[in-house]
Amino acid sequence: MRVELPSTTGTFARLASLIASAGGDLGGIDLVSAGPKRTVRDVTVKASDGDHARKIIETVRSEPLFDVRSVSDRTFLMHLGGKISVENRHALKTRDDLSMAYTPGVARVCTAIAEDPKSAWTLTMKGSMVAIVTDGSAVLGLGDIGPEAALPVMEGKAMLFKEFGGINAFPICLATKDVDSIVEIVTSIAPGFGGINLEDISAPRCFEIESRLKKHLDIPVFHDDQHGTAVVVLAALYNASKFLGLPLSKLKVVVNGIGAAGVACTRMIRSAGVKNIIGFDKEGPLYRGREDMTPAKADYARITNPGRYSGEMAGALKGAHLFLGVSGPGAVKPEWLEKMAKKAMVFAMANPIPEIMPEEIPKNVKVIATGRSDYPNQINNVLCFPGIFKGALSAHASEINERMKLAAAKAIAGIVKPAELSAEYIIPSVFDRKVVAAVAQAVAKAAVASGVARRKPRLPDVVVR
Amino acid sequence: MRVELPSTTGTFARLASLIASAGGDLGGIDLVSAGPKRTVRDVTVKASDGDHARKIIETVRSEPLFDVRSVSDRTFLMHLGGKISVENRHALKTRDDLSMAYTPGVARVCTAIAEDPKSAWTLTMKGSMVAIVTDGSAVLGLGDIGPEAALPVMEGKAMLFKEFGGINAFPICLATKDVDSIVEIVTSIAPGFGGINLEDISAPRCFEIESRLKKHLDIPVFHDDQHGTAVVVLAALYNASKFLGLPLSKLKVVVNGIGAAGVACTRMIRSAGVKNIIGFDKEGPLYRGREDMTPAKADYARITNPGRYSGEMAGALKGAHLFLGVSGPGAVKPEWLEKMAKKAMVFAMANPIPEIMPEEIPKNVKVIATGRSDYPNQINNVLCFPGIFKGALSAHASEINERMKLAAAKAIAGIVKPAELSAEYIIPSVFDRKVVAAVAQAVAKAAVASGVARRKPRLPDVVVR
Repeated sequence: MRVELPSTTGTFARLASLIASAGGDLGGIDLVSAGPKRTVRDVTVKASDGDHARKIIETVRSEPLFDVRSVSDRTFLMHLGGKISVENRHALKTRDDLSMAYTPGVARVCTAIAEDPKSAWTLTMKGSMVAIVTDGSAVLGLGDIGPEAALPVMEGKAMLFKEFGGINAFPICLATKDVDSIVEIVTSIAPGFGGINLEDISAPRCFEIESRLKKHLDIPVFHDDQHGTAVVVLAALYNASKFLGLPLSKLKVVVNGIGAAGVACTRMIRSAGVKNIIGFDKEGPLYRGREDMTPAKADYARITNPGRYSGEMAGALKGAHLFLGVSGPGAVKPEWLEKMAKKAMVFAMANPIPEIMPEEIPKNVKVIATGRSDYPNQINNVLCFPGIFKGALSAHASEINERMKLAAAKAIAGIVKPAELSAEYIIPSVFDRKVVAAVAQAVAKAAVASGVARRKPRLPDVVVR
Repeated sequence: MRVELPSTTGTFARLASLIASAGGDLGGIDLVSAGPKRTVRDVTVKASDGDHARKIIETVRSEPLFDVRSVSDRTFLMHLGGKISVENRHALKTRDDLSMAYTPGVARVCTAIAEDPKSAWTLTMKGSMVAIVTDGSAVLGLGDIGPEAALPVMEGKAMLFKEFGGINAFPICLATKDVDSIVEIVTSIAPGFGGINLEDISAPRCFEIESRLKKHLDIPVFHDDQHGTAVVVLAALYNASKFLGLPLSKLKVVVNGIGAAGVACTRMIRSAGVKNIIGFDKEGPLYRGREDMTPAKADYARITNPGRYSGEMAGALKGAHLFLGVSGPGAVKPEWLEKMAKKAMVFAMANPIPEIMPEEIPKNVKVIATGRSDYPNQINNVLCFPGIFKGALSAHASEINERMKLAAAKAIAGIVKPAELSAEYIIPSVFDRKVVAAVAQAVAKAAVASGVARRKPRLPDVVVR
C-alpha cells in the first residue's frame, strides 16, 4: 500500500506496529517522497488471504495519522498481461533473416518434413513443446471454474516447465467437458507437440481421456495430477521406509481419497511392491462386492484390500504403516493414528489444509510429509514433471510408461543421500537443481530400456544435420 | 562450407572464382585456423535453391587443392529446435515467486476470473495471444503437405507477429481436414486466445470454416490468406490509382485466380468502390449462368462481371485498368496487357514466380506490383496482419469487420505521402516500422466506431487494477 504519513519520529514505528497488530507481515519498504511535513512510502505487507488483506488495510485506515493513498496486490500485478509470452529464437531484422525464417527459404524445410515426418522433431518446436491441456473442471481446490478461470494455473504450470525443465509448454484451455470431444481435439492438435500434460480434469473423466489418448497418440500423454503426484509419493515412500527400516512388501497402507491422485498413487506403490493397501472414499473402504461403486472404483477394489475390510477407518489404521491422504482437511483423527504401527508414516497431502495438521500427529508417527512448503518434506509435483518430460522428449519417447515413472521416483529419492536421510528430510527441495537433471537422465535411460525411445537420448538436445 | 586450403597466395582467390563460376554468391568468410601449410575457412555462399547449392559444392570439391570438410545450411540450422519458444514474463526463483505465480496465490486470480470472465483479457495471456490455425492443406505453393510440414511456416508467421506487432502468436497445426471438426476444435480452444488467424487452409473449405467460426466466437477470426492479402492489395490500389489519377469507381479490373485470396481481394476492392470486375479461373471467366461452378464461385459471379463477359482473357483485358493475379506463373501474356488502358496497373502476386515477370510487361502498364522482395512495390501481408490484430486486441474487439479492414488499407496507403508517390513506391516497405502503429491505431478506432470494441483501446496495453 502507498501511505502518506507525518514526517515525525515514531510515526513509521506506529504504522509498523498497527500492521503487526492486524497480523500482517511487513515486507519491503520504499520511500516515494519525503518532505518536511509529510512522507510517502510504499509498504509491502503479506497477508494470508484477501479477507486478511482487507482487514489490515482497514486497520491502517482507522488511524487518522495515516492516509492510505492506494493499494495494489502483487499477485494480481504479476498476472497483468499474462505470465508467459511467445518469443523468437532468432532475430528477424533483415530481408535475409526473413527469407530463411519465412518465405522462400522455409519451403525447403517444409518439404524436408513432408518427405520425412519424423524430422519435425528436430526442425520445429515440436521436440521441446508440451501442451498443458485442461477443461477447467477440477482446478486446484476450486473445482469446476471453467477454461478462462483455469488459465492462470496453466500459465503458472508452463512457467514451472520452463524454469525447472527448460521445456516450452503452452496452455490449451478447452471450452468443452465432453470426453469424446476432448479426445478428438487433443488428437488433432498433437502434431505440433512432443508431449501432452493433462491437468486439472475431474475424475473419473480424466481416466478415460488419458487412456484413449494414449491409444491414439504416439507422444507421451501424462496426467500430472495422477502420475506426477504418484511418482513423488513413491519417492518419499522409498526414502521414508528406508529411513525407518521398513520393507515395502511388508507395509500396510491406508489411502484416503480415491480420486485421480489416490488411484494413481495406489497403482504406483503397488508397482513398487506394496501389497496391503486399503482405499477409502467418503462412503468408507473400497472392497470387492461393495455396491454403488463407479467402474474406476470397482477396478480399484479388485486390486486392493486383500482382506476385504469393510469397517471404519480407525480400524483399518490399526497396525498400518502409512496413512496416505489425498482428500481434504479433517479426514483423520489423532487417536486413530495412535493405533498405527510403532514406526508409522503420514503423508497428508490435501492442499492448502492437510488431512491433519502436523502439530496434532501423535509420536508413533515418525515421518510426516505434506503438500505445503512451510513444513518439512513437501510432496510437490514440480519434483517430477519437468524432469520426466525432459527425459521423455530427449529420447523422442512415444509414451511415459511405468518403468519411466519408477525410474523418476528412484531418481528423486536418490537425490537425498543415505547419510542425509532424516525424519525431516526424505524428499529434496523443489529448488534443488540436481533433481531435474537426475530425473531426466533416469527417465531417458528407462525409455530406451523399455523400447519407447525413437532416438538415442541427447541432453541437452543439440542436433546437427 | 568449411574448406581446408593451402596457405599460399592466390588459393583463396581461386576458391572465390570457382564459387562465382558456379553462380554462387559469396557471403561471410571466417578464419577457423591458419598454419604455415594449411588454412581452414568457413565460407558462406548464397545459392538459389538446394540443387544449385549442391552444384556449387561439387564444383569446389572437383578442385583437388580444396578439401571441403563439412557443409551446413543456414536455413536448416535456423530451424533446429524450432524458431519460437515460450518464455516466463517473471522470475520464478523464490518460494515467494512460486506462491504468487502458482499455488496458493494463483487461486485468488482464478476466482476473480470465474466471477468476472472478461477479466481474463487482462489477467491472462488471452489479451495478447493469437492462435495461428492451419490444417496444412494449402501451404505456400506446396499444397497439402499436412500439419507437421506446415509447422515451420506457422512458426515463421508467429515470429512475424512478434517482431512486427509485439503480439504473442502460437501455431496450432491440425491433423484433420474435416470442416465440422476444425470448427469444433477452434471453438473449443478459443478461451485462451484473443484472436484466431486462419492460415493456409485450402479453398473453398476456408470460406465455410471462417464464416462458421465468426458466428460461434466472440473474438476476431481472420483468414490472412484472404483478408490480409486483400487489405494490402487495396492499399496498393489506393495509391496506384491516386498516382495515375484514376478514380476507383471507373476502373475495369480483371482478377485471375478465384481461390481464397482472389475472392477476398474482389470483395475488398468492391467495398472500396470498384464496380467492373471480371474474375477468371482455369476454365475461363466467371459469369452468371456458367455451369459447374462451386457455390463460392456462383456467389462470385453474382456480384461481378456486370456485362456477363464469357470470352477469352485477352478480350477481357481490352481497356482494363488493373490485372490482379493471384494464380500462377505464365497466366498472362505481354500482348494481352498491351491492349489494356493507357495507364494500366499489373499486380502479379503469384509467389515466388509471378503471373508475368516485370521485365516482360509492356510500357502502357505504369505501375507494377508483385509479391517479391526483389522488385519494387512488394505486396506482403506482413504490412497488414500484425497491425490489424494489434488494433483489434487493444480494443478487445469481438471481430475484425469490413470497416476495420478498410481502415487498415487506408492506414497502410497513408504511410506513403502524396509527394513521395511514384510508379516504384506505392506501398511501404515491410521494414517501415511506422506501418504497424498506424494500422493498429486506425483499426482500433474503427473497432470503436463500428461498435465491436469492448473497451477503450489502449496502445500499448497497460492495465492497472
